[in-house]
Amino acid sequence: MKSSMNKRSVSKRLEKVPASPIRKLVPFAQQAKKDGVTVYHLNIGDPDIKTPDVMLKALTSWDRDPISYSQSQGEPSFLLALKTYYHRFGFPFIEEKHIQVTTGGSEAVSMAMFSICNPGDEVIVFEPFYANYNTYAAVNGITLVPIPTKLENGFHLPERKIIEEKITNKTKAILICSPNNPTGTVYTKEEMDMLISIAKKYTLFLLSDEVYREFCYDGKRQVSLFSYMEEIPNQAIVLDSLSKRYSLCGARLGCLVSLNKEIMDGVLRIAQGRLSSGLIDQVMASKLTEVPSSYMKNVQAEYQKRRDVLFEELGKIKGIDLPPKPEGAFYAIVGLPVKDAEDFCKFLLTTFRDNNETVMLAPAAGFYASTSLSTGATIGKNEVRIAYVLNTTAIKRSVEIITEALKQYISSY
Amino acid sequence: MKSSMNKRSVSKRLEKVPASPIRKLVPFAQQAKKDGVTVYHLNIGDPDIKTPDVMLKALTSWDRDPISYSQSQGEPSFLLALKTYYHRFGFPFIEEKHIQVTTGGSEAVSMAMFSICNPGDEVIVFEPFYANYNTYAAVNGITLVPIPTKLENGFHLPERKIIEEKITNKTKAILICSPNNPTGTVYTKEEMDMLISIAKKYTLFLLSDEVYREFCYDGKRQVSLFSYMEEIPNQAIVLDSLSKRYSLCGARLGCLVSLNKEIMDGVLRIAQGRLSSGLIDQVMASKLTEVPSSYMKNVQAEYQKRRDVLFEELGKIKGIDLPPKPEGAFYAIVGLPVKDAEDFCKFLLTTFRDNNETVMLAPAAGFYASTSLSTGATIGKNEVRIAYVLNTTAIKRSVEIITEALKQYISSY
Repeated sequence: MKSSMNKRSVSKRLEKVPASPIRKLVPFAQQAKKDGVTVYHLNIGDPDIKTPDVMLKALTSWDRDPISYSQSQGEPSFLLALKTYYHRFGFPFIEEKHIQVTTGGSEAVSMAMFSICNPGDEVIVFEPFYANYNTYAAVNGITLVPIPTKLENGFHLPERKIIEEKITNKTKAILICSPNNPTGTVYTKEEMDMLISIAKKYTLFLLSDEVYREFCYDGKRQVSLFSYMEEIPNQAIVLDSLSKRYSLCGARLGCLVSLNKEIMDGVLRIAQGRLSSGLIDQVMASKLTEVPSSYMKNVQAEYQKRRDVLFEELGKIKGIDLPPKPEGAFYAIVGLPVKDAEDFCKFLLTTFRDNNETVMLAPAAGFYASTSLSTGATIGKNEVRIAYVLNTTAIKRSVEIITEALKQYISSY
Repeated sequence: MKSSMNKRSVSKRLEKVPASPIRKLVPFAQQAKKDGVTVYHLNIGDPDIKTPDVMLKALTSWDRDPISYSQSQGEPSFLLALKTYYHRFGFPFIEEKHIQVTTGGSEAVSMAMFSICNPGDEVIVFEPFYANYNTYAAVNGITLVPIPTKLENGFHLPERKIIEEKITNKTKAILICSPNNPTGTVYTKEEMDMLISIAKKYTLFLLSDEVYREFCYDGKRQVSLFSYMEEIPNQAIVLDSLSKRYSLCGARLGCLVSLNKEIMDGVLRIAQGRLSSGLIDQVMASKLTEVPSSYMKNVQAEYQKRRDVLFEELGKIKGIDLPPKPEGAFYAIVGLPVKDAEDFCKFLLTTFRDNNETVMLAPAAGFYASTSLSTGATIGKNEVRIAYVLNTTAIKRSVEIITEALKQYISSY
């Protein structure tokens, strides 16, 4: 048979993979930098906090040659370190066999989706949600079913009835992230209890993205899915990453943790196909057990301070829509007094300069999947996600720039 | 609605992901090592060749802190190094925009499959083929259509008619690997011309896995898909990896190269979802342009010597089925005088010891997808893939062990 097409086209599913709202404005930022402009990056969760010394020393004292494959499940020393970490956190039932090392938390989420969903199956998420979930959903052919949460009450969960109404015979899982990216919300014990109860009632998987586990403020603590894991051993999957915890974003290391043997066997087969995660990153990260506890305490204190400064400064902007102060992570979703926040973000990068400086923000629309029932418009269109990953001086200066830019934008457009 | 299931089950597609034939015997090897047995690893293409000094120095002189994300398309210095490498190889039309850095060659193959195939679409492969293609096919919901090649003629391509007969309206691409894993075959210019001609006639994509580009022996040179890329710009995709070239298996770095803008835009969106490949690996690998040309010459000479020793020694085994000497890569598919090579490989790991040493081989059945029309049996069941990645002393000793093990296995089973 002869194809009638003149040119091979890409797959329909490739067309459905969205551009990252966090990264799609990168070319404009690069151009600004080429033009000599300083760009404050509040668009991406790429902290300026130092990586623990003990990890960097693992690099500078590197003595393995050649750089050979690691094991598909994970480098043994790294698996052991992760197990020790979970034990210290209060979950002594976790063994190495419950851990699959992944190349970033991204791979963990994607593997989990693939493992539990057939094409067309549904996973419930609370929106706004981490935008890249859309990408993993598109790549794995699954449908994210968003349930809105509200800025006014700090994006906490809606009542049980609203969640249950969204469960269909295609629903396989509820995917949560607490402390949350992009809202900073930390779910309470009552909220977690409710989710566990729903998962039990409808026999759903619970996928818990706990990348920001330690990033809780005002004395709060995260309620981890690990606390419920022995209660629903076959339905609980924790997705984790070292990127934020140890300022290792570029190390591409995470893990998927579950007591469900079928899941663990399956993800190992997927992992074998891609051979292993990076050896160097894993050897370096194996040092996590030697990171002093003061490291994380200092990091927490620093982020709490940044959050407070950010909210104090943002509060001075006329017409801004601020949620209650986020309890964790290092993001905030904020409503700006503009119609189209993406257009404003572009304006910041391409047009606005203050003393040859500007700010990069992530338009929040990409963190939503719902459209307004009444208008058909994308929800969150006037919102941005701000990652408070820079020091307080830089944050103050950034808000100053945003304030000036808003004035100029509103008056000229 | 209430699910009737007592326990969440995994997805049907997860069950279809095969265990890696290269890695599934790993637990037996680990047990042997725990028991104090030395295991010669000829099962996996994880060379003992040293990583270039200039790359290791990039580690020991590491001075970036924190370890932050790289760009989704690739670290700029690494993209530039890759471009320079392709230019030096004779393909000056390659620009950065044609390159997507991937986390290993694995991700490049998987991204390519996703990008051009909708679920259920077909990709033609020549078998035996790299077993992990089965994994990427399962993960991406596509069907590999295997066309057998024969040991007797060194696994070169069958005649055109046989290939054309396999093309259906679901066929999207032909996936090749030359120099080949697992056979070592290097396709001739005539074979490449034929493939290009078929791709043109039926408007198919050509996916070319060129991980072993430099590994050609007896003065032969690989005929790259790059040579045809400007002729079929929208249909050619090269899949590459640094793992073998610079003994960087553990660095998880590869790339996907194409002049097709739609493909490059699409794979970048997928890449944004997983943020970036590892920063440290990329900074290290950026030094590839500084690797002296003597490095690769020495590597080539070393592998040619290993291949020659391997074939000389294997030739002495009674009843062995040897192909003509492979022209490239560092693998050979060899027929053993046993019915079930996997069982023999297990025997080597669990039972046979010679001076407390044994050998690990990869059973070749996993590199085949066809079953025998007459018997329904898996083809290649008596074959193993041998990776000649160890020095000649270790290879000689390994074949000695295999010879003894075969005697004992055949007499006792």
